[in-house]
Amino acid sequence: MKDTDNIPALMADIGARARDASRTLAFASAESKQIALTAAADAVWDSRADIIAANALDLEYAHDKGLSGAMIDRLMLDEDRLQGVVDSLRSVAAQPDLVGAVIAEWDMPSGLNIQRVRTPLGVIGVIYESRPNVTADAGALCLKAGNAVILRGGSESLHSARAIHACLLQGLRAADLPEDAIQLVPTRDRAAVSEMLGMTEHIDVIVPRGGKGLVGLVQREARVPVFAHLEGIVHIYLDKSADPVKALDVVMNAKTRRTGICGAAECLLVHRDIAASIGADVISALIAAGVELRVTPPLDAIAGTVAAGDDDWGREYLDSILAARPVDDIDEAIAHIRRYGSGHTDCIVTEDASAAAHFFERLDSAILMHNASTQFADGGEFGMGAEIGIATGKLHARGPVGTEQLTSFKYLVRGNGSVRG
Amino acid sequence: MKDTDNIPALMADIGARARDASRTLAFASAESKQIALTAAADAVWDSRADIIAANALDLEYAHDKGLSGAMIDRLMLDEDRLQGVVDSLRSVAAQPDLVGAVIAEWDMPSGLNIQRVRTPLGVIGVIYESRPNVTADAGALCLKAGNAVILRGGSESLHSARAIHACLLQGLRAADLPEDAIQLVPTRDRAAVSEMLGMTEHIDVIVPRGGKGLVGLVQREARVPVFAHLEGIVHIYLDKSADPVKALDVVMNAKTRRTGICGAAECLLVHRDIAASIGADVISALIAAGVELRVTPPLDAIAGTVAAGDDDWGREYLDSILAARPVDDIDEAIAHIRRYGSGHTDCIVTEDASAAAHFFERLDSAILMHNASTQFADGGEFGMGAEIGIATGKLHARGPVGTEQLTSFKYLVRGNGSVRG
Repeated sequence: MKDTDNIPALMADIGARARDASRTLAFASAESKQIALTAAADAVWDSRADIIAANALDLEYAHDKGLSGAMIDRLMLDEDRLQGVVDSLRSVAAQPDLVGAVIAEWDMPSGLNIQRVRTPLGVIGVIYESRPNVTADAGALCLKAGNAVILRGGSESLHSARAIHACLLQGLRAADLPEDAIQLVPTRDRAAVSEMLGMTEHIDVIVPRGGKGLVGLVQREARVPVFAHLEGIVHIYLDKSADPVKALDVVMNAKTRRTGICGAAECLLVHRDIAASIGADVISALIAAGVELRVTPPLDAIAGTVAAGDDDWGREYLDSILAARPVDDIDEAIAHIRRYGSGHTDCIVTEDASAAAHFFERLDSAILMHNASTQFADGGEFGMGAEIGIATGKLHARGPVGTEQLTSFKYLVRGNGSVRG
Repeated sequence: MKDTDNIPALMADIGARARDASRTLAFASAESKQIALTAAADAVWDSRADIIAANALDLEYAHDKGLSGAMIDRLMLDEDRLQGVVDSLRSVAAQPDLVGAVIAEWDMPSGLNIQRVRTPLGVIGVIYESRPNVTADAGALCLKAGNAVILRGGSESLHSARAIHACLLQGLRAADLPEDAIQLVPTRDRAAVSEMLGMTEHIDVIVPRGGKGLVGLVQREARVPVFAHLEGIVHIYLDKSADPVKALDVVMNAKTRRTGICGAAECLLVHRDIAASIGADVISALIAAGVELRVTPPLDAIAGTVAAGDDDWGREYLDSILAARPVDDIDEAIAHIRRYGSGHTDCIVTEDASAAAHFFERLDSAILMHNASTQFADGGEFGMGAEIGIATGKLHARGPVGTEQLTSFKYLVRGNGSVRG
């Protein structure tokens, strides 16, 4: 490992090379990017034994560090998971190329022709934690959008990330694109992260992918703009006009399909009029499915519930736990979500179209759902292809962040010796 | 003046009230916003004597502080300028309302219907310098886009800004919209600016409008996202295939129409092959028009030029001064602009379509022009209506910032008890 004593110098060099590469990438042909990604997919498959061997070193390190079973599972690579990485690279390769597309065009009375043309953002910094597949996904999405990328993975996954990164470099070479287009920070030193957060000259936007600790650090320290990825403190409101079957289906899926993803439901708000009927049925079914229900009265009358504490509101469990409380009406539900939600994804279950419209109008989460599981909060399920994450901020990117959100635009103005009067 | 000792408390209160108002504004009807802006325009005209009297206090203060003639001119209000303010308010009122518009809509195989709907950004902080009309323009644009706004004008224009702000409040009252939708920071204390730059909870984006000092402060200190407004270090490249008449027209207009605006040309790059012909003609005409030309050899052979120093490259004069140098070819021009430009607006004059295409492809300024005066870099000239400024960053807003750039979007997802497999 190329550890170095001088992190600022290392990172400044990486940044300058990324900026340089980004200038070439900005006008790289669609074909060359496609060749690079396809060749990278081939390389991952051809090198699967090497990648799995590198991953074994990371797993050993993780065991030594005493990481949790869930963390180790996230870190682990096998042939199946590498097939997933390969599929994902191929699917990004197959996406349409957006760079250079004319988004809008119009003529002005002054005689000017104005085009708004899609451009790459420039240099993206991606700071992520243990999942090694992010190395491939983030690298591929940034490249597809014409950006150079600086990847800083979790220290636990460094060997795996390096092995996958080597395949991405093979892809770049095959397409005659600059290798500096996709750089991996070659050190475990955390100072590299702090350095990235201040590199306003060399990085245009930082995408953090990880838990509260990482996101908090990024939000406190970053001088570079960040695509905010707050927690998914996802709420579902069961309206008094909820359909009992849809309520059961949606809540069960939203909580239990996978508990560890950001679209998993964390809090259930139940209209008081249906607390003892639909609410009780849903809560009982969740408990039967092994979910711990932390509730306030009168929901505590339902067998198997436990009492919620004050700190159960606004909490992202990412586990088989759900907070639940009654509300007097839809506005109390909205007020609760405004106070405790994270603006990621929130859902109403109702047959009353005006209640749904009210919920959609008064709340401002990145994704609002009506009678649909919050686990659909995903770029793929939105038809956007792969995603680098879900943005909860309101600037530039919001919701799933795919290639389109990794682009900007510029204006091209054509005159004929035109002057302003 | 409501000066206060506790700036943090004052600003936190302003921020919380803005956030609150923004929640109501987010679903205010198009009609109510139009009524507010029209009533505000009426109020400005009806109160013109009061506004001009308030402005006299500011002018007196400015004289006492020994401000420059140019600053005092910017500060001054008369009936003509107030007519401009009124016209601008009416023109924003007449713009189409964007909030709530469905930007895109599609169905997924899962049965989900997905809409991308335009929303306000939330709360905008506008920090500006002496021009009192910005109070009306920025307030109107933010309101039209459904945002609450916190206005922090220059200390020199406080009386004028308060008088204009009072008219905006009359408009809000006439439309039954919350008065906290448009707040003016009521103190000259600069600590209020620093406070705004850190109010991540209450302000969604800061728009700085002003000179280098202000923009630098904002860029160094802001924790809140900023629509970067760097200087306009505007370059014009005269290609070897430039048309002599277009070259003369474009450069003369770009430099001399108004020297103090950000779209004014600051540096001329001349292809060596035409330096003694078209280049000399353009430079001589500029000198005859009173422009000081700071040049390097062989352009110093042209009568009336003076020698350029190293610090003349990358400089925003905002004055009757132009730097000029020869380049060997278009790529040297591009390299110069990459090194010294500010990514605002840059222009090529040429009859060679492939040279123009090369210039458009290789450079990444917010606005690139071909055979057109850079003084067209303006929201009005782009057909976007009033603008709050020109953004040189690449995130969210780029180029002229009008109402559209002051909005975000959210996803509305409709299912029928839909669950993810």
